[in-house]
Amino acid sequence: MIPIRKFYTILLLFLMIYMINLSLKADDGYRLWLKYDKIENEAIRESYKKLIQKTFLIGNSSVMQVVENELSMALHGLLGQPLLHNNDLTQNTLIIALENDLPSAILDREKYATSLTGDNFSDQGFVIRTIRKSAVTYTVITARGESGLLYGVFHFIRLLQTCQDIDNLNIKSSPKIKHRVLNHWDNLDRTVERGYSGFSLWDWQKLPDYIHSYYIDYARANASVGINGTVLNNVNASPQILTPLYLKKVAALADVFRPYGIKVYLSIRFSAPIDIGGLKRADPLDSEVRQWWADKAAEIYELIPNFGGFLVKANSEGQPGPQDYGRTHADGANMLAEALKPHGGVVMWRAFVYDNKVKEDRAKQAYNEFVLLDGQFNDNVLVQVKNGPIDFQPREPFHPLFGATPKTSLMMEFQITQEYLGFSTHLVYLGTLFKEVLDADTYVRDMGSTVAKVIDGSLHGHSISGIAGVANTGTDRNWTGHIFAQANWYAYGRLAWDHTLTAEEIARDWIKMTLSRDDDIVNPILEMMMESRENTVNYMTPLGLHHIMGWDHHYGPAPWIKDKPRDDWTSVYYHRANEEGIGFDRTETGSNAVSLYAKPVRQKFSSLETCPDEYLLWFHHLDWTYVMRSGNTLWDELCYRYYDGAERVTRMKEAWNDLQDKIDDEIYNHVKQMMIIHEKEAIWWRNACVLYFQTFSGLPIPTDLVRPDKSLEYYMNLSFPFAPK
Amino acid sequence: MIPIRKFYTILLLFLMIYMINLSLKADDGYRLWLKYDKIENEAIRESYKKLIQKTFLIGNSSVMQVVENELSMALHGLLGQPLLHNNDLTQNTLIIALENDLPSAILDREKYATSLTGDNFSDQGFVIRTIRKSAVTYTVITARGESGLLYGVFHFIRLLQTCQDIDNLNIKSSPKIKHRVLNHWDNLDRTVERGYSGFSLWDWQKLPDYIHSYYIDYARANASVGINGTVLNNVNASPQILTPLYLKKVAALADVFRPYGIKVYLSIRFSAPIDIGGLKRADPLDSEVRQWWADKAAEIYELIPNFGGFLVKANSEGQPGPQDYGRTHADGANMLAEALKPHGGVVMWRAFVYDNKVKEDRAKQAYNEFVLLDGQFNDNVLVQVKNGPIDFQPREPFHPLFGATPKTSLMMEFQITQEYLGFSTHLVYLGTLFKEVLDADTYVRDMGSTVAKVIDGSLHGHSISGIAGVANTGTDRNWTGHIFAQANWYAYGRLAWDHTLTAEEIARDWIKMTLSRDDDIVNPILEMMMESRENTVNYMTPLGLHHIMGWDHHYGPAPWIKDKPRDDWTSVYYHRANEEGIGFDRTETGSNAVSLYAKPVRQKFSSLETCPDEYLLWFHHLDWTYVMRSGNTLWDELCYRYYDGAERVTRMKEAWNDLQDKIDDEIYNHVKQMMIIHEKEAIWWRNACVLYFQTFSGLPIPTDLVRPDKSLEYYMNLSFPFAPK
Repeated sequence: MIPIRKFYTILLLFLMIYMINLSLKADDGYRLWLKYDKIENEAIRESYKKLIQKTFLIGNSSVMQVVENELSMALHGLLGQPLLHNNDLTQNTLIIALENDLPSAILDREKYATSLTGDNFSDQGFVIRTIRKSAVTYTVITARGESGLLYGVFHFIRLLQTCQDIDNLNIKSSPKIKHRVLNHWDNLDRTVERGYSGFSLWDWQKLPDYIHSYYIDYARANASVGINGTVLNNVNASPQILTPLYLKKVAALADVFRPYGIKVYLSIRFSAPIDIGGLKRADPLDSEVRQWWADKAAEIYELIPNFGGFLVKANSEGQPGPQDYGRTHADGANMLAEALKPHGGVVMWRAFVYDNKVKEDRAKQAYNEFVLLDGQFNDNVLVQVKNGPIDFQPREPFHPLFGATPKTSLMMEFQITQEYLGFSTHLVYLGTLFKEVLDADTYVRDMGSTVAKVIDGSLHGHSISGIAGVANTGTDRNWTGHIFAQANWYAYGRLAWDHTLTAEEIARDWIKMTLSRDDDIVNPILEMMMESRENTVNYMTPLGLHHIMGWDHHYGPAPWIKDKPRDDWTSVYYHRANEEGIGFDRTETGSNAVSLYAKPVRQKFSSLETCPDEYLLWFHHLDWTYVMRSGNTLWDELCYRYYDGAERVTRMKEAWNDLQDKIDDEIYNHVKQMMIIHEKEAIWWRNACVLYFQTFSGLPIPTDLVRPDKSLEYYMNLSFPFAPK
Repeated sequence: MIPIRKFYTILLLFLMIYMINLSLKADDGYRLWLKYDKIENEAIRESYKKLIQKTFLIGNSSVMQVVENELSMALHGLLGQPLLHNNDLTQNTLIIALENDLPSAILDREKYATSLTGDNFSDQGFVIRTIRKSAVTYTVITARGESGLLYGVFHFIRLLQTCQDIDNLNIKSSPKIKHRVLNHWDNLDRTVERGYSGFSLWDWQKLPDYIHSYYIDYARANASVGINGTVLNNVNASPQILTPLYLKKVAALADVFRPYGIKVYLSIRFSAPIDIGGLKRADPLDSEVRQWWADKAAEIYELIPNFGGFLVKANSEGQPGPQDYGRTHADGANMLAEALKPHGGVVMWRAFVYDNKVKEDRAKQAYNEFVLLDGQFNDNVLVQVKNGPIDFQPREPFHPLFGATPKTSLMMEFQITQEYLGFSTHLVYLGTLFKEVLDADTYVRDMGSTVAKVIDGSLHGHSISGIAGVANTGTDRNWTGHIFAQANWYAYGRLAWDHTLTAEEIARDWIKMTLSRDDDIVNPILEMMMESRENTVNYMTPLGLHHIMGWDHHYGPAPWIKDKPRDDWTSVYYHRANEEGIGFDRTETGSNAVSLYAKPVRQKFSSLETCPDEYLLWFHHLDWTYVMRSGNTLWDELCYRYYDGAERVTRMKEAWNDLQDKIDDEIYNHVKQMMIIHEKEAIWWRNACVLYFQTFSGLPIPTDLVRPDKSLEYYMNLSFPFAPK
């Protein structure tokens, strides 16, 4: 029998949630950060109203209608005032117009023309400026292209949402990276590879005729942070996506996204000419094959005039590719690039390759293949490189390819979905992870040659540039499973636009837009978010450990994984724990992967004097008794890190519970329940890893730490046959 | 290039939908029929308020808290008035109390005690009665059991929602069937077999810790129509559901559903003792196996004290079962029944069996197996029989097992999900289908031996009875994909409670609760719904045709399916079209399946004089030139039916479009888009079937009908590799 008390606890829990349905305050998270609830502070609200008495919006294209709609919603919601059109400019007016359409009677167009040029200032960039003429104030949002106005208006709305001073605006903003895309690993059966928030947003069965309203909200959300492209389908691509049946469906989505400045891209299967084209081969140097792709590209552009291009995973993890015909990645990419070139499309060719037959350290394989191809890629090819050399681990050093191919445009591939960071049940803010990678210095052209400068094209003078984030969206009502996972989508977009922003300012904006504008609430939440990724590294893979998660589904800890079809799909390959010590020696005495970095980086990582603790076991195999900077032995330090990571989750949980009644009830309860899972799983990681590594170290867990209450055997016997993967 | 005009059409469409997000009127369908929007008619509202000045609610169990919550929401919403507790009974009061708790000072308890007994009056039944004492009016809802109060309150709320007169209530209602369950064909990976509304509601990965608020709304919806059980997982069951890991998750759901009077059941895999129990065999007569199931039942009841029982698909379509060990279905069912018996659970054993090796007409196989077992099943076994002898076709005659096993409790299995009726994109109201089956007369005990009386146990005097509906729910925001598919869930529940209701009155209630209370709107919608299933039969499978849908996924028409691993998985097996004629001869000259029915039924179906057109080709193979009652030849009649079915969908679409601005915008647009798909697919069915059958008849399509604009070859070449299945 369930004890009566348990019944009542459950009852109370659900009645609490249940009452949410009664409350008008209940927020299911669907609106993301685009919440236009009335600004509570009347003084601020009135000051805004005074400055936006009227709106003067020029143009009636589909983009401009979107701009007008969004602004109308925002002003209606935030200020409780409708959008009042007026063009006589006698009152304080918000002016939204392309540079060429600015009312010259009032404004000095030349001045704007100047301000909209300069260092790589893009058509997508915008200027927001306060102009005073006599007693009238004009807030001017202008740009060279319409999408610039769209981004400018979203920026302006954000200022209102976060209660910024808008009295004297002088903002100039232009995206540093040209192609800012989401990669959806969505299959045509609506399952999502590494999806933890329900299933694919794309309802293929009902497309092209049925348009879900959430498609539009998806576009709004992306546009609001400057994302301008979306790859709809999984890199492990079905060839069916290129059939006429599916291209019509893709076109329907492209039509919805177009006014939001979002281009659609598709992942293609390299063998499509065979799979659906009836050809015998897919050799990229075969003229029939080349013609097939050229025809296919023409067919696509007929349906989707602004189609973005192809994303390709080839000769990687079993996918077909040019090497099947003795050709190179460059041969494959260039064939597709030629097919897309007449239409303005690009190829995003993934560098995530590692060969079954190559015995080399996996951390070196992509580098070894692609460095040799530098200079061979067409000018509409971007080579897409994951942030680290293994696979989206909680922490990796930056990928050695960054900076190593000066003649090749490299784009970044980040993973927003938390494949290795607790799925959608752990609260982990990834803004700090993204920033750590973007700010990492490759030193390939002296100090300051950051990864960000490699991918924005500025370091080596490339005219195209790109960044991709593997999406964490799904059919869950709140889009991302965990409401805090929305912040990772948000942060990805903001950094894709401007990598000089700090993770903290982005988090602060997100909290204010999503949860509360009250500093007493913002600050503790900000603190949680800012430390969350470091905690997670600590309870999962401290000190440079990596790839010790559950087999296949990657759920939970499993450092004991061994004897699999490939060594580099096991855990023991990566941690290399034995009775002496632990860690992967990637210095000269080991795989020498460290040699792939520029000299200052190589030196820093190679030497135990300078190698940061964070990367210690990534690059070095060390004795259990090795003495760390902290004075602890490696074994003790490892234990302390694991315990500290988990302990901080408990504290995070408590800090969250302190917010009861201070934020929306439904969001509060949602996160409260998630934190229970998060804490359980952090302790699970800690216990399983410490107990497992202890079988090698043979050393006791420091006495000031509590003993795991379950045995290693218990953890090793856990099995999750239906964990999402 | 897409023509500019097309761009603008799309733009307008999406801006239209988009504006919905601005409007407070927008209804995404999530609330189902439990909408408590304020009653527009003030006179009615005031009359209700006058009668419900106060509420006197006795009891504070979890059920009573649910009752109070629901009532509070309803009164707040419908009347704009909070629930005002009062127990001095000096004002007009709504009294909700168990019979024993009724305030005796005011009410004659004896009288109620009498009214709550009688013909099979159940603990779940309720009485609602208006009592006047001096100037005070009491509206009394009472019952013997708490769930009766729950159902009584939902009934009362429905009266308000549909604006019924509540001045002089004298309602007595008790469910005619004991176990009223939904069958979810939901897999543990959240895919749903034959699911067309997203994915499984059960978020197994996050259970037991994370409780989605929609679990509660699911329970509310079911309770509101009297559904009192839910089988959580697919009949093609994973054995994992019975592992401790999953049972904890199941228990969490059971805890949520319990206060709503809903029991949880599980589908089990017959080989579970081998799959997860480590046994070598699953022989139901093996004592080790019997002990394993007894222990498993005890383990389940420890976690879930009110667990409902097991649903079993055995020796059917590849599933393991007792016949693997030379035992009978009764042996298998009884073993499980014994395991559950001490805890009060039941076994629902499916009769949907047909053997690969048996060459007999599939329509006879289940009958042949189960009739022989009559009298052998334990008293807590229900044999679950699909409504027709094949498989949930748009129309089938009732299953010949109904009435043929007087010593066995048979339960009905209806399919709410539209596997064969247009998935979730066709507007097909199934209330009429359900009623047709329930009202069908088996004649096994003279006239009036309806199927309904077989399954409610009254015909043969059984004390347990059951009905199952294969659920159409999923993660789509509106639960069922098509908002009109909600009506099928609703109608199933209402009929499960009271099979004497008409399909029309149920539809009328549903429309009023879901779409509009305005008769000018209700009536045209009612008309659509009432004719919708007949239309669908006509454009899919008129005149008794059946099982001619797409292979495997069952999407769209494919009467040409042949040469598959089993004959009875093909279309040609069922329609038997040749140059002479069409139809399955199930009379004495053919398979003689008609002989399985009682004499009057047998005679009626056997004779061409009396066999209804609806079942003609189900029972007879007839020449193309056979002259129908209508005077048309069979070929012409077939064409006219196909065209009429499709034509009526077009008219339905137009009728819907006439409702613009009369109902909620979001719902209007949702259905409008669905109707476009519905019409396309109705024409697709019509064209493909007529063209295909024409290859046999060699006769022209009647000249007053338009020619299909595509060739048969076109239709035969269509392929849908990712259609849901």
